[in-house]
Amino acid sequence: MSTIGFIGLGIMGGPMARHLAAAGHDVVGFNRSPEKTRALVNAGGRAAGSVAEAVAGADVVALMLPDSPDVESVLTDGVLGTAEPGTLVIDFSTIRPDVARDLAGQAAEHGLRMLDAPVSGGQGGAENATLSIMVGGADADVDAARPLLEVVGKTVVHVGPAGAGQTVKAANQLIVAGNIALVAEALTFLQAHGADLPAAVEVLGGGLAGSAVLDQKAQKMLDGDFAPGFRVDLHHKDMQIVTSAAAQAGVVTPLGALVAQLVAATRSAGDGGLDHSALFRTIARLNGDLS
Amino acid sequence: MSTIGFIGLGIMGGPMARHLAAAGHDVVGFNRSPEKTRALVNAGGRAAGSVAEAVAGADVVALMLPDSPDVESVLTDGVLGTAEPGTLVIDFSTIRPDVARDLAGQAAEHGLRMLDAPVSGGQGGAENATLSIMVGGADADVDAARPLLEVVGKTVVHVGPAGAGQTVKAANQLIVAGNIALVAEALTFLQAHGADLPAAVEVLGGGLAGSAVLDQKAQKMLDGDFAPGFRVDLHHKDMQIVTSAAAQAGVVTPLGALVAQLVAATRSAGDGGLDHSALFRTIARLNGDLS
Amino acid sequence: MSTIGFIGLGIMGGPMARHLAAAGHDVVGFNRSPEKTRALVNAGGRAAGSVAEAVAGADVVALMLPDSPDVESVLTDGVLGTAEPGTLVIDFSTIRPDVARDLAGQAAEHGLRMLDAPVSGGQGGAENATLSIMVGGADADVDAARPLLEVVGKTVVHVGPAGAGQTVKAANQLIVAGNIALVAEALTFLQAHGADLPAAVEVLGGGLAGSAVLDQKAQKMLDGDFAPGFRVDLHHKDMQIVTSAAAQAGVVTPLGALVAQLVAATRSAGDGGLDHSALFRTIARLNGDLS
Amino acid sequence: MSTIGFIGLGIMGGPMARHLAAAGHDVVGFNRSPEKTRALVNAGGRAAGSVAEAVAGADVVALMLPDSPDVESVLTDGVLGTAEPGTLVIDFSTIRPDVARDLAGQAAEHGLRMLDAPVSGGQGGAENATLSIMVGGADADVDAARPLLEVVGKTVVHVGPAGAGQTVKAANQLIVAGNIALVAEALTFLQAHGADLPAAVEVLGGGLAGSAVLDQKAQKMLDGDFAPGFRVDLHHKDMQIVTSAAAQAGVVTPLGALVAQLVAATRSAGDGGLDHSALFRTIARLNGDLS
Repeated sequence: MSTIGFIGLGIMGGPMARHLAAAGHDVVGFNRSPEKTRALVNAGGRAAGSVAEAVAGADVVALMLPDSPDVESVLTDGVLGTAEPGTLVIDFSTIRPDVARDLAGQAAEHGLRMLDAPVSGGQGGAENATLSIMVGGADADVDAARPLLEVVGKTVVHVGPAGAGQTVKAANQLIVAGNIALVAEALTFLQAHGADLPAAVEVLGGGLAGSAVLDQKAQKMLDGDFAPGFRVDLHHKDMQIVTSAAAQAGVVTPLGALVAQLVAATRSAGDGGLDHSALFRTIARLNGDLS
Repeated sequence: MSTIGFIGLGIMGGPMARHLAAAGHDVVGFNRSPEKTRALVNAGGRAAGSVAEAVAGADVVALMLPDSPDVESVLTDGVLGTAEPGTLVIDFSTIRPDVARDLAGQAAEHGLRMLDAPVSGGQGGAENATLSIMVGGADADVDAARPLLEVVGKTVVHVGPAGAGQTVKAANQLIVAGNIALVAEALTFLQAHGADLPAAVEVLGGGLAGSAVLDQKAQKMLDGDFAPGFRVDLHHKDMQIVTSAAAQAGVVTPLGALVAQLVAATRSAGDGGLDHSALFRTIARLNGDLS
Repeated sequence: MSTIGFIGLGIMGGPMARHLAAAGHDVVGFNRSPEKTRALVNAGGRAAGSVAEAVAGADVVALMLPDSPDVESVLTDGVLGTAEPGTLVIDFSTIRPDVARDLAGQAAEHGLRMLDAPVSGGQGGAENATLSIMVGGADADVDAARPLLEVVGKTVVHVGPAGAGQTVKAANQLIVAGNIALVAEALTFLQAHGADLPAAVEVLGGGLAGSAVLDQKAQKMLDGDFAPGFRVDLHHKDMQIVTSAAAQAGVVTPLGALVAQLVAATRSAGDGGLDHSALFRTIARLNGDLS
Repeated sequence: MSTIGFIGLGIMGGPMARHLAAAGHDVVGFNRSPEKTRALVNAGGRAAGSVAEAVAGADVVALMLPDSPDVESVLTDGVLGTAEPGTLVIDFSTIRPDVARDLAGQAAEHGLRMLDAPVSGGQGGAENATLSIMVGGADADVDAARPLLEVVGKTVVHVGPAGAGQTVKAANQLIVAGNIALVAEALTFLQAHGADLPAAVEVLGGGLAGSAVLDQKAQKMLDGDFAPGFRVDLHHKDMQIVTSAAAQAGVVTPLGALVAQLVAATRSAGDGGLDHSALFRTIARLNGDLS
């Protein structure tokens, strides 16, 4: 059993920490809004009053934070000087690949072993411990972390060295946003032509046009049900990661660039708090279908 | 059992006609290159020397032809004046929705009942009788055709009135080409960042980024295996259908427009004879990765 | 002096016909709404009650009509069988290049000499006889027409064989719509950053970013003055010409495709009757700046 | 007369510094490759062995450096602690607007007055002292700098507070790259249709499609003359500035995003050292016209 300092107990980190506690680990959680530690304590964990307190004595530190600057500041201010050499740091956050690589380097200088381990599967995946986890880091560290990762995820894949997890997560977000936009355009096209939409979605799903997005999001678009789910604001943040990571590596992604614009337009229209399938509303607006 | 005049015995129409013959129907086939009728005769069908000969005496006429002008000319010159009133005409070809609607109207004026019934699933689907068929037309005519359609297809869905089958097929081709391009961009992005590509494809496939394209095409892209399959030239023709059908209906599809350009560029580069997954090569060229 | 049958006396054709009459030619005008012939008669021309009446006895036939089908029907129904062999037909309309080539071929079969001579410069250019005219056709016919063309235009350039005038006009409309959209994006970018916009427009206009669009349209965008001018609906029609002419020739134009989508979105938003600079409003909508 | 420390004597900074010396100012130049100071000395200036030496005793410090990090490091390491309070710092470099704002803030903390004053007009504009200069900063500082700015530029426009000069320069680069790409697409379209290209360029230039890019770059594209001029690599850097400044301000620029991809593709193809009009070669490649 491990002693795990878990930083960030939001809608993703909260259930993940509780699963780890339920599996018998000693989980010491910290969250900026301290009331979020209560559920962890109820699940058998402990509450810490600061990052340093959560990290002290831990052999594993887990992070689940909103964005690159959050991870940078928690790591720099509370983990690097505090954690014992040899501590395994697992960052579940979705952040910029270059920042992940930099932080892994800094962690190594302090004798820490760091993995980037962003997840997909959303709130449901966190609650049901069915996340997909894309892990970047050294073989031995991934092997050491795997038993813990398999507590919170169903699919755990080692995709390369430090930063590679973030790179694959970025690619994931590119494909997902692109598929949402494509399905939105296809449905708008079918509406304009008077096709039977549920029948069309059924037959499209059975062939090469089939996708998880079509399965999970098309009917919701037709129903106008855009309750999140994964919010546009977060997907926008992720598309900025894709865009800047592509630019840094000199990668040309014409569709990706246009998809990022459509996501940004969805947010500019005031739909940032809706599910990312609300890209449909941007396509509708371009077609004069929303006032 | 029906007497079926089947026009167009190419890589799709050939196996479809043979399945109908094997199911006990009297199939009279015609093809411009007459040697293609041989396999049908071997499967128990008959060969006709002209469209009119195939149509004479048939209670069902089936068409599987390359493009809108082919269907227009076969219908106008060989079917409309020849087929008995009441004959069911099933057009399996992928053509322009507006042409399909016009032809259905002309057929009705001649007392014929016409369905547009384009298919997806490719050569394999035709050979294994597992096609998905998107059918446009009147309820009664679809009901009448269904037993025959289920001989050649696994999924048969009535998606609306005349032309709706072509509309849904167009939407299918939009989504497929878009997904291919997105996966190509994502793989190029991952290559540039040095991720473990097969591992990345595995983990991407398990979540919301999962799609039939990712399952069936990503590894082939990585292997450089672009043997068709469904050729770029045909997908280019289909994207022209999407583009013009969208323009006619005044539908705005920004991604679709850009995807059509990428397909056109793939063809311009001389890759028209490759599988449509060769869109990957266009993305690679934009990244300076192919000479 | 020539006898000129002039078909189409709208906001462009009306002043053009009057300039020809004022220059001493015998101009016989026809317009579907006959009250539009009055101004021509006041300017010394004559009114015809039908296309055939306008064409009878003319040694030059001029057309200024809205779209390809209009030119096709007037030519087929009223000109080809009526005009004397040797008559010079000058089509000032903006139509599809392939239609222009076809019609020139049909005219030749009837012994007529046809030029496509679309114009730029708008209503102001027509009224002030300062149009730019891009002429496609045979050298001798262009030479014969030049004195007449110079009555209505300031710049008359022979750009190639039949259809070439329309091709160059299509390229013109591509560049103009693209420039309008670029300027709209640049101004939106500058607004968001709080730059001094009139000062910015001034300094941008002095360098390599300078253009007629920046000179004539930027301030109107900032003022919200979208009174036409050249209406979005017409530019939309022209972008469909660009798009289909590019597709027919297999030309890949990624920006052109996206610009056409933005023009279509402007029309879908209900701004079709505004000046084409109202593309600015589509960019503003994408930025959440218009309700 | 002023004593001016001028940092960065490359193809732009070199002639600018010499014009200032020729106008009677005491110009002390520094360049990383010291041989570039020779021409300045010949023109009546003086050579410094370090940034600090150039800055010591100057009442004006001018910078003309390649990119944001260069300006940051020169300013931080050599200017902020060295220059006398009250010194006017004029940064002619093209850098990120947010960096320009930050640096102006830091300069103010050291009692310095800083202007961002990026230029357009290229090498020719620097040599002929005909640059356009877009200036961001406080009114009084712009007034103080104006006599010097007018020595090197023909058009000097105050476009807003600190950073606004860079914002306007970014907008300039967006419009210029977009226009180049549009002209490249239009010429490719015209080539495919067999139009007379020089005639087409002439008539396009006379109307609303006219632009400085069409005047200065179209014929060079047709001639295949891509000798710089302004290199693709630099325009690529500038498009990254546009893209990130747009993203930071939440501005949606669909065309700008696609143009940035085309510039990046031009660089990826190995054309980074050519003039930015080599975007034509990327469009040609997409059309299969270059091997």
